[in-house]
Amino acid sequence: MFSSVSAPVTKSERTRSSIRDIALRSFRERGYDLTTIRLIAQEAGVSVGTTNYHFASKNDLVQELYLEVQRAHRDAAEPLLGQTDDLVERLGIVFRTGLDQLEPYHRFAPEFLSAAVSPRSSLNPLSGESAPSRDIVVGLFREAVSGAANRLPAEFERDMPSALVLAHLLLALFWVYDGSPERERTRRLLDRGLRLLKLSLPLIRVRVLRKPLRELLDLVAEVRA
Amino acid sequence: MFSSVSAPVTKSERTRSSIRDIALRSFRERGYDLTTIRLIAQEAGVSVGTTNYHFASKNDLVQELYLEVQRAHRDAAEPLLGQTDDLVERLGIVFRTGLDQLEPYHRFAPEFLSAAVSPRSSLNPLSGESAPSRDIVVGLFREAVSGAANRLPAEFERDMPSALVLAHLLLALFWVYDGSPERERTRRLLDRGLRLLKLSLPLIRVRVLRKPLRELLDLVAEVRA
Repeated sequence: MFSSVSAPVTKSERTRSSIRDIALRSFRERGYDLTTIRLIAQEAGVSVGTTNYHFASKNDLVQELYLEVQRAHRDAAEPLLGQTDDLVERLGIVFRTGLDQLEPYHRFAPEFLSAAVSPRSSLNPLSGESAPSRDIVVGLFREAVSGAANRLPAEFERDMPSALVLAHLLLALFWVYDGSPERERTRRLLDRGLRLLKLSLPLIRVRVLRKPLRELLDLVAEVRA
Repeated sequence: MFSSVSAPVTKSERTRSSIRDIALRSFRERGYDLTTIRLIAQEAGVSVGTTNYHFASKNDLVQELYLEVQRAHRDAAEPLLGQTDDLVERLGIVFRTGLDQLEPYHRFAPEFLSAAVSPRSSLNPLSGESAPSRDIVVGLFREAVSGAANRLPAEFERDMPSALVLAHLLLALFWVYDGSPERERTRRLLDRGLRLLKLSLPLIRVRVLRKPLRELLDLVAEVRA
Protein backbone atom coordinates (compact mmCIF):
# COMPACT_ATOMS: atom_id res chain seq x y z
CA MET A 1 0.00 0.00 0.00
CA PHE A 2 2.74 2.42 1.01
CA SER A 3 5.16 1.02 -1.52
CA SER A 4 3.47 2.93 -4.33
CA VAL A 5 4.13 6.30 -2.66
CA SER A 6 7.56 5.61 -1.11
CA ALA A 7 10.70 4.48 -2.99
CA PRO A 8 10.06 1.51 -5.27
CA VAL A 9 11.35 -1.03 -2.79
CA THR A 10 10.07 -4.59 -2.97
CA LYS A 11 9.70 -6.83 0.04
CA SER A 12 12.70 -8.82 -1.16
CA GLU A 13 14.81 -5.66 -1.37
CA ARG A 14 13.75 -4.63 2.11
CA THR A 15 14.70 -8.05 3.46
CA ARG A 16 18.07 -7.89 1.72
CA SER A 17 18.72 -4.42 3.08
CA SER A 18 17.74 -5.46 6.61
CA ILE A 19 20.05 -8.52 6.53
CA ARG A 20 22.85 -6.30 5.25
CA ASP A 21 22.38 -3.68 7.98
CA ILE A 22 22.28 -6.31 10.72
CA ALA A 23 25.41 -7.99 9.37
CA LEU A 24 27.30 -4.70 9.20
CA ARG A 25 26.34 -3.88 12.78
CA SER A 26 27.42 -7.36 13.83
CA PHE A 27 30.85 -6.97 12.19
CA ARG A 28 31.27 -3.70 14.08
CA GLU A 29 30.07 -5.10 17.42
CA ARG A 30 31.19 -8.75 17.33
CA GLY A 31 33.95 -8.72 14.76
CA TYR A 32 34.51 -11.19 11.97
CA ASP A 33 34.97 -14.49 13.82
CA LEU A 34 31.81 -14.33 15.95
CA THR A 35 29.52 -13.09 13.19
CA THR A 36 27.65 -16.03 11.66
CA ILE A 37 24.92 -16.35 9.05
CA ARG A 38 22.83 -18.11 11.71
CA LEU A 39 23.04 -15.15 14.11
CA ILE A 40 22.30 -12.64 11.38
CA ALA A 41 19.26 -14.61 10.21
CA GLN A 42 18.01 -14.84 13.80
CA GLU A 43 18.37 -11.10 14.40
CA ALA A 44 16.76 -10.27 11.05
CA GLY A 45 13.86 -12.59 11.86
CA VAL A 46 14.35 -14.62 8.68
CA SER A 47 15.52 -18.15 7.94
CA VAL A 48 19.11 -19.13 7.18
CA GLY A 49 17.82 -20.09 3.72
CA THR A 50 16.51 -16.56 3.11
CA THR A 51 19.81 -15.08 4.27
CA ASN A 52 21.72 -17.40 1.96
CA TYR A 53 19.42 -16.50 -0.91
CA HIS A 54 20.50 -12.86 -0.62
CA PHE A 55 24.13 -13.45 0.44
CA ALA A 56 25.71 -16.79 -0.40
CA SER A 57 28.24 -16.55 2.43
CA LYS A 58 29.48 -14.45 5.31
CA ASN A 59 32.22 -13.21 3.02
CA ASP A 60 29.65 -11.69 0.65
CA LEU A 61 28.49 -9.63 3.61
CA VAL A 62 32.07 -8.55 4.31
CA GLN A 63 32.14 -7.23 0.74
CA GLU A 64 29.08 -5.13 1.68
CA LEU A 65 31.06 -3.85 4.65
CA TYR A 66 34.01 -2.99 2.39
CA LEU A 67 31.67 -1.04 0.11
CA GLU A 68 30.06 0.81 3.02
CA VAL A 69 33.49 1.73 4.43
CA GLN A 70 34.84 2.96 1.11
CA ARG A 71 31.71 4.94 0.25
CA ALA A 72 32.04 6.69 3.62
CA HIS A 73 35.74 7.18 2.79
CA ARG A 74 34.80 8.91 -0.47
CA ASP A 75 32.13 11.03 1.23
CA ALA A 76 34.68 12.18 3.81
CA ALA A 77 37.53 12.79 1.36
CA GLU A 78 35.85 14.60 -1.51
CA PRO A 79 34.77 17.83 0.25
CA LEU A 80 38.30 18.14 1.69
CA LEU A 81 39.91 17.57 -1.70
CA GLY A 82 38.04 20.66 -2.86
CA GLN A 83 40.01 22.77 -0.39
CA THR A 84 43.60 22.32 -1.57
CA ASP A 85 45.48 21.75 -4.80
CA ASP A 86 48.75 20.71 -3.13
CA LEU A 87 49.61 17.14 -4.16
CA VAL A 88 50.98 15.96 -0.82
CA GLU A 89 48.14 17.56 1.14
CA ARG A 90 45.64 15.87 -1.18
CA LEU A 91 47.29 12.48 -0.68
CA GLY A 92 47.22 13.11 3.07
CA ILE A 93 43.48 13.72 2.89
CA VAL A 94 42.84 10.39 1.16
CA PHE A 95 45.10 8.48 3.58
CA ARG A 96 43.70 10.16 6.71
CA THR A 97 40.03 9.88 5.85
CA GLY A 98 40.72 6.24 4.94
CA LEU A 99 42.16 5.53 8.39
CA ASP A 100 39.21 7.34 10.01
CA GLN A 101 36.78 4.83 8.50
CA LEU A 102 38.76 1.86 9.84
CA GLU A 103 38.95 3.16 13.39
CA PRO A 104 35.66 1.62 14.71
CA TYR A 105 36.98 -1.83 13.71
CA HIS A 106 40.39 -1.66 15.36
CA ARG A 107 39.75 -4.15 18.14
CA PHE A 108 38.63 -6.73 15.57
CA ALA A 109 41.24 -5.82 12.99
CA PRO A 110 43.47 -8.89 13.61
CA GLU A 111 40.50 -11.17 12.82
CA PHE A 112 39.70 -9.39 9.58
CA LEU A 113 43.39 -9.36 8.67
CA SER A 114 43.77 -13.13 9.21
CA ALA A 115 40.67 -13.78 7.11
CA ALA A 116 41.67 -11.44 4.29
CA VAL A 117 45.45 -11.67 3.98
CA SER A 118 45.72 -14.86 1.96
CA PRO A 119 46.01 -14.16 -1.77
CA ARG A 120 43.49 -17.01 -2.12
CA SER A 121 40.85 -15.28 0.03
CA SER A 122 37.94 -13.54 -1.69
CA LEU A 123 38.20 -11.00 1.13
CA ASN A 124 41.67 -9.99 0.07
CA PRO A 125 41.49 -6.27 -0.79
CA LEU A 126 43.35 -7.10 -4.03
CA SER A 127 40.98 -9.92 -5.08
CA GLY A 128 38.58 -9.80 -8.03
CA GLU A 129 35.66 -9.91 -5.57
CA SER A 130 36.96 -6.80 -3.79
CA ALA A 131 37.27 -4.77 -7.02
CA PRO A 132 34.12 -2.63 -6.43
CA SER A 133 35.33 -1.25 -3.09
CA ARG A 134 38.98 -1.11 -4.19
CA ASP A 135 38.01 0.90 -7.27
CA ILE A 136 36.57 3.61 -5.02
CA VAL A 137 39.98 4.00 -3.35
CA VAL A 138 41.87 3.88 -6.66
CA GLY A 139 39.49 6.61 -7.88
CA LEU A 140 40.14 8.77 -4.83
CA PHE A 141 43.90 8.54 -5.28
CA ARG A 142 43.53 9.25 -9.00
CA GLU A 143 41.49 12.32 -8.14
CA ALA A 144 44.07 13.40 -5.56
CA VAL A 145 46.91 13.10 -8.09
CA SER A 146 45.19 14.51 -11.19
CA GLY A 147 43.60 17.45 -9.39
CA ALA A 148 46.88 18.69 -7.91
CA ALA A 149 48.59 21.89 -9.05
CA ASN A 150 51.99 20.20 -8.95
CA ARG A 151 51.63 17.67 -11.75
CA LEU A 152 53.72 14.53 -12.01
CA PRO A 153 55.31 13.12 -15.16
CA ALA A 154 52.53 11.39 -17.14
CA GLU A 155 53.68 7.81 -16.52
CA PHE A 156 53.68 8.44 -12.77
CA GLU A 157 50.21 9.95 -12.85
CA ARG A 158 48.96 6.84 -14.60
CA ASP A 159 50.50 4.20 -12.32
CA MET A 160 50.70 5.96 -8.98
CA PRO A 161 47.07 5.45 -7.92
CA SER A 162 47.48 1.64 -7.87
CA ALA A 163 50.76 1.95 -5.98
CA LEU A 164 49.12 4.39 -3.56
CA VAL A 165 46.38 1.85 -2.86
CA LEU A 166 49.12 -0.60 -1.86
CA ALA A 167 50.71 2.08 0.31
CA HIS A 168 47.32 2.58 1.93
CA LEU A 169 47.03 -1.17 2.57
CA LEU A 170 50.50 -1.19 4.13
CA LEU A 171 49.52 1.77 6.31
CA ALA A 172 46.40 -0.16 7.35
CA LEU A 173 48.64 -3.15 8.16
CA PHE A 174 50.79 -0.90 10.38
CA TRP A 175 47.54 0.39 11.96
CA VAL A 176 46.42 -3.17 12.82
CA TYR A 177 49.69 -3.61 14.75
CA ASP A 178 49.46 -0.18 16.37
CA GLY A 179 48.92 -0.53 20.13
CA SER A 180 49.42 3.19 20.87
CA PRO A 181 46.53 5.27 22.27
CA GLU A 182 44.21 6.42 19.46
CA ARG A 183 46.68 4.89 16.98
CA GLU A 184 48.74 8.09 17.22
CA ARG A 185 51.78 6.14 16.05
CA THR A 186 50.12 5.39 12.69
CA ARG A 187 49.17 9.06 12.33
CA ARG A 188 52.76 10.05 13.04
CA LEU A 189 54.09 7.53 10.51
CA LEU A 190 51.75 9.00 7.92
CA ASP A 191 52.69 12.60 8.76
CA ARG A 192 56.38 11.82 8.59
CA GLY A 193 56.03 9.77 5.42
CA LEU A 194 54.18 12.65 3.75
CA ARG A 195 56.77 15.17 4.93
CA LEU A 196 59.53 13.01 3.46
CA LEU A 197 57.54 12.64 0.24
CA LYS A 198 57.13 16.41 0.00
CA LEU A 199 60.86 16.91 0.42
CA SER A 200 61.86 14.17 -2.00
CA LEU A 201 59.21 14.72 -4.69
CA PRO A 202 61.49 17.03 -6.72
CA LEU A 203 63.90 14.07 -7.03
CA ILE A 204 61.40 12.39 -9.34
CA ARG A 205 62.76 14.72 -12.01
CA VAL A 206 66.38 13.67 -11.42
CA ARG A 207 67.10 11.58 -14.48
CA VAL A 208 69.25 8.95 -12.77
CA LEU A 209 66.54 8.23 -10.16
CA ARG A 210 63.52 8.53 -12.41
CA LYS A 211 63.98 5.34 -14.43
CA PRO A 212 64.61 2.94 -11.50
CA LEU A 213 61.79 4.62 -9.57
CA ARG A 214 59.40 4.13 -12.46
CA GLU A 215 60.45 0.49 -12.91
CA LEU A 216 59.87 -0.15 -9.24
CA LEU A 217 56.46 1.50 -9.44
CA ASP A 218 55.57 -0.64 -12.49
CA LEU A 219 56.28 -3.83 -10.57
CA VAL A 220 54.49 -2.75 -7.41
CA ALA A 221 51.43 -1.44 -9.23
CA GLU A 222 50.89 -4.91 -10.72
CA VAL A 223 50.48 -6.73 -7.40
CA ARG A 224 47.29 -8.78 -7.49
CA ALA A 225 45.83 -11.30 -5.09
CA MET B 1 75.83 -48.35 25.56
CA PHE B 2 76.58 -46.25 22.50
CA SER B 3 75.48 -43.08 24.22
CA SER B 4 78.75 -42.89 26.16
CA VAL B 5 80.85 -42.80 22.98
CA SER B 6 78.57 -40.76 20.69
CA ALA B 7 77.07 -37.34 21.53
CA PRO B 8 75.40 -37.23 24.94
CA VAL B 9 71.89 -37.82 23.64
CA THR B 10 69.28 -39.26 25.97
CA LYS B 11 66.31 -41.26 24.77
CA SER B 12 64.11 -38.27 25.51
CA GLU B 13 66.32 -36.01 23.42
CA ARG B 14 66.25 -38.50 20.55
CA THR B 15 62.45 -38.65 20.72
CA ARG B 16 62.23 -34.87 20.74
CA SER B 17 64.55 -34.61 17.77
CA SER B 18 62.61 -37.23 15.84
CA ILE B 19 59.29 -35.48 16.46
CA ARG B 20 60.85 -32.22 15.37
CA ASP B 21 62.27 -33.66 12.14
CA ILE B 22 58.97 -35.31 11.24
CA ALA B 23 57.05 -32.09 11.92
CA LEU B 24 59.43 -30.04 9.78
CA ARG B 25 59.09 -32.50 6.90
CA SER B 26 55.32 -32.40 7.30
CA PHE B 27 55.24 -28.58 7.10
CA ARG B 28 57.28 -28.79 3.89
CA GLU B 29 55.18 -31.56 2.35
CA ARG B 30 51.67 -30.90 3.72
CA GLY B 31 51.79 -27.26 4.71
CA TYR B 32 50.51 -25.69 7.89
CA ASP B 33 46.80 -26.49 7.80
CA LEU B 34 47.10 -30.26 7.22
CA THR B 35 49.91 -30.82 9.71
CA THR B 36 48.47 -32.03 13.02
CA ILE B 37 49.99 -33.22 16.29
CA ARG B 38 48.08 -36.47 15.79
CA LEU B 39 49.71 -37.14 12.39
CA ILE B 40 53.17 -36.25 13.69
CA ALA B 41 52.78 -38.56 16.69
CA GLN B 42 51.64 -41.36 14.42
CA GLU B 43 54.58 -40.96 12.04
CA ALA B 44 57.05 -40.69 14.93
CA GLY B 45 55.57 -43.84 16.48
CA VAL B 46 54.85 -42.10 19.77
CA SER B 47 51.68 -41.09 21.60
CA VAL B 48 50.01 -37.70 21.29
CA GLY B 49 50.85 -37.26 24.98
CA THR B 50 54.56 -37.76 24.31
CA THR B 51 54.44 -35.28 21.44
CA ASN B 52 52.68 -32.75 23.64
CA TYR B 53 55.24 -33.31 26.38
CA HIS B 54 57.99 -32.14 24.03
CA PHE B 55 56.00 -29.54 22.08
CA ALA B 56 52.92 -28.07 23.72
CA SER B 57 51.29 -27.18 20.40
CA LYS B 58 51.68 -27.26 16.64
CA ASN B 59 52.80 -23.65 16.84
CA ASP B 60 55.80 -24.63 18.99
CA LEU B 61 56.83 -26.83 16.10
CA VAL B 62 56.44 -23.94 13.68
CA GLN B 63 58.91 -22.05 15.86
CA GLU B 64 61.33 -24.96 15.29
CA LEU B 65 60.74 -24.51 11.58
CA TYR B 66 61.44 -20.77 11.84
CA LEU B 67 64.71 -21.54 13.63
CA GLU B 68 65.73 -24.15 11.03
CA VAL B 69 64.97 -21.73 8.19
CA GLN B 70 66.88 -18.84 9.73
CA ARG B 71 69.89 -20.97 10.66
CA ALA B 72 70.06 -22.10 7.04
CA HIS B 73 69.68 -18.43 6.06
CA ARG B 74 72.70 -17.54 8.21
CA ASP B 75 74.73 -20.46 6.85
CA ALA B 76 74.00 -19.35 3.29
CA ALA B 77 74.60 -15.63 3.88
CA GLU B 78 77.77 -15.56 5.95
CA PRO B 79 80.25 -17.02 3.43
CA LEU B 80 78.92 -14.59 0.80
CA LEU B 81 79.19 -11.61 3.17
CA GLY B 82 82.91 -12.39 3.34
CA GLN B 83 83.23 -11.63 -0.37
CA THR B 84 82.19 -7.98 -0.58
CA ASP B 85 82.34 -4.86 1.55
CA ASP B 86 79.81 -2.90 -0.50
CA LEU B 87 76.80 -2.01 1.65
CA VAL B 88 74.10 -2.51 -0.96
CA GLU B 89 75.63 -5.77 -2.20
CA ARG B 90 75.78 -7.00 1.39
CA LEU B 91 72.12 -6.15 1.96
CA GLY B 92 71.28 -7.92 -1.30
CA ILE B 93 73.03 -11.06 -0.02
CA VAL B 94 70.95 -11.13 3.16
CA PHE B 95 67.69 -10.48 1.29
CA ARG B 96 68.41 -13.03 -1.48
CA THR B 97 69.60 -15.87 0.75
CA GLY B 98 66.53 -15.19 2.92
CA LEU B 99 64.19 -15.64 -0.05
CA ASP B 100 66.06 -18.81 -1.07
CA GLN B 101 65.14 -20.46 2.24
CA LEU B 102 61.46 -19.66 1.82
CA GLU B 103 61.20 -21.06 -1.69
CA PRO B 104 60.36 -24.71 -0.76
CA TYR B 105 57.32 -23.43 1.15
CA HIS B 106 55.82 -21.21 -1.54
CA ARG B 107 52.76 -23.33 -2.33
CA PHE B 108 51.83 -23.34 1.36
CA ALA B 109 52.79 -19.74 2.01
CA PRO B 110 49.20 -18.39 2.12
CA GLU B 111 48.40 -20.85 4.95
CA PHE B 112 51.41 -19.84 6.98
CA LEU B 113 50.66 -16.18 6.31
CA SER B 114 47.05 -16.47 7.51
CA ALA B 115 48.19 -18.27 10.66
CA ALA B 116 51.00 -15.82 11.41
CA VAL B 117 49.77 -12.40 10.34
CA SER B 118 47.67 -11.50 13.36
CA PRO B 119 49.59 -9.44 15.90
CA ARG B 120 47.97 -11.74 18.47
CA SER B 121 49.49 -14.89 16.93
CA SER B 122 52.53 -16.46 18.58
CA LEU B 123 53.63 -17.32 15.03
CA ASN B 124 53.86 -13.67 14.09
CA PRO B 125 57.50 -13.05 13.09
CA LEU B 126 57.42 -9.98 15.35
CA SER B 127 56.08 -11.83 18.42
CA GLY B 128 58.00 -12.51 21.61
CA GLU B 129 57.87 -16.24 20.81
CA SER B 130 59.54 -15.64 17.45
CA ALA B 131 62.43 -13.64 18.93
CA PRO B 132 65.03 -16.46 18.66
CA SER B 133 64.63 -16.84 14.89
CA ARG B 134 64.06 -13.12 14.32
CA ASP B 135 67.27 -12.31 16.19
CA ILE B 136 69.23 -14.35 13.66
CA VAL B 137 67.90 -12.13 10.86
CA VAL B 138 68.47 -8.93 12.84
CA GLY B 139 72.04 -10.15 13.42
CA LEU B 140 72.59 -10.81 9.72
CA PHE B 141 71.42 -7.33 8.76
CA ARG B 142 73.55 -5.83 11.54
CA GLU B 143 76.56 -7.71 10.18
CA ALA B 144 75.74 -6.56 6.63
CA VAL B 145 75.56 -2.91 7.73
CA SER B 146 78.47 -2.80 10.17
CA GLY B 147 80.87 -4.76 7.96
CA ALA B 148 80.40 -2.47 4.96
CA ALA B 149 83.12 -0.12 3.71
CA ASN B 150 80.58 2.64 3.15
CA ARG B 151 79.52 3.40 6.72
CA LEU B 152 76.24 5.05 7.60
CA PRO B 153 75.72 7.79 10.18
CA ALA B 154 75.79 6.11 13.62
CA GLU B 155 72.07 6.49 14.37
CA PHE B 156 71.21 4.78 11.09
CA GLU B 157 73.60 1.91 11.75
CA ARG B 158 71.90 1.33 15.07
CA ASP B 159 68.27 1.34 13.93
CA MET B 160 68.50 0.11 10.36
CA PRO B 161 68.75 -3.61 11.14
CA SER B 162 65.26 -3.66 12.73
CA ALA B 163 63.84 -1.65 9.84
CA LEU B 164 65.57 -3.99 7.38
CA VAL B 165 63.91 -6.98 9.05
CA LEU B 166 60.56 -5.30 8.37
CA ALA B 167 61.62 -4.66 4.78
CA HIS B 168 62.48 -8.35 4.54
CA LEU B 169 59.04 -9.28 5.90
CA LEU B 170 57.38 -6.99 3.36
CA LEU B 171 59.46 -8.58 0.61
CA ALA B 172 58.31 -12.00 1.87
CA LEU B 173 54.71 -10.72 1.78
CA PHE B 174 55.21 -9.67 -1.84
CA TRP B 175 56.72 -13.13 -2.50
CA VAL B 176 53.61 -14.86 -1.08
CA TYR B 177 51.53 -12.95 -3.64
CA ASP B 178 53.99 -13.58 -6.46
CA GLY B 179 52.42 -15.86 -9.08
CA SER B 180 55.24 -15.40 -11.62
CA PRO B 181 57.43 -18.40 -12.62
CA GLU B 182 60.19 -18.98 -10.05
CA ARG B 183 59.03 -15.81 -8.29
CA GLU B 184 61.11 -13.79 -10.78
CA ARG B 185 58.92 -10.77 -10.06
CA THR B 186 60.03 -10.72 -6.41
CA ARG B 187 63.67 -11.01 -7.50
CA ARG B 188 63.18 -8.10 -9.89
CA LEU B 189 61.52 -6.00 -7.18
CA LEU B 190 64.49 -6.67 -4.92
CA ASP B 191 67.05 -5.89 -7.65
CA ARG B 192 65.31 -2.65 -8.54
CA GLY B 193 64.82 -1.65 -4.93
CA LEU B 194 68.52 -2.21 -4.25
CA ARG B 195 69.51 -0.24 -7.35
CA LEU B 196 67.33 2.65 -6.22
CA LEU B 197 68.81 2.40 -2.72
CA LYS B 198 72.33 2.53 -4.16
CA LEU B 199 71.49 5.64 -6.15
CA SER B 200 69.71 7.40 -3.31
CA LEU B 201 71.99 6.40 -0.42
CA PRO B 202 74.09 9.59 -0.74
CA LEU B 203 70.89 11.54 -0.02
CA ILE B 204 71.03 10.29 3.57
CA ARG B 205 73.67 12.99 4.06
CA VAL B 206 71.42 15.76 2.73
CA ARG B 207 70.53 17.64 5.88
CA VAL B 208 66.93 18.45 4.97
CA LEU B 209 66.14 14.78 4.27
CA ARG B 210 68.15 13.20 7.04
CA LYS B 211 66.00 14.25 9.98
CA PRO B 212 62.60 13.17 8.55
CA LEU B 213 64.19 9.95 7.29
CA ARG B 214 65.59 9.18 10.72
CA GLU B 215 62.25 9.95 12.41
CA LEU B 216 60.48 7.64 9.99
CA LEU B 217 63.03 4.92 10.67
CA ASP B 218 62.57 5.36 14.43
CA LEU B 219 58.85 4.75 14.15
CA VAL B 220 59.14 1.82 11.79
CA ALA B 221 61.89 0.11 13.78
CA GLU B 222 59.59 0.01 16.81
CA VAL B 223 56.88 -2.10 15.20
CA ARG B 224 56.06 -5.04 17.44
CA ALA B 225 53.42 -7.71 17.30
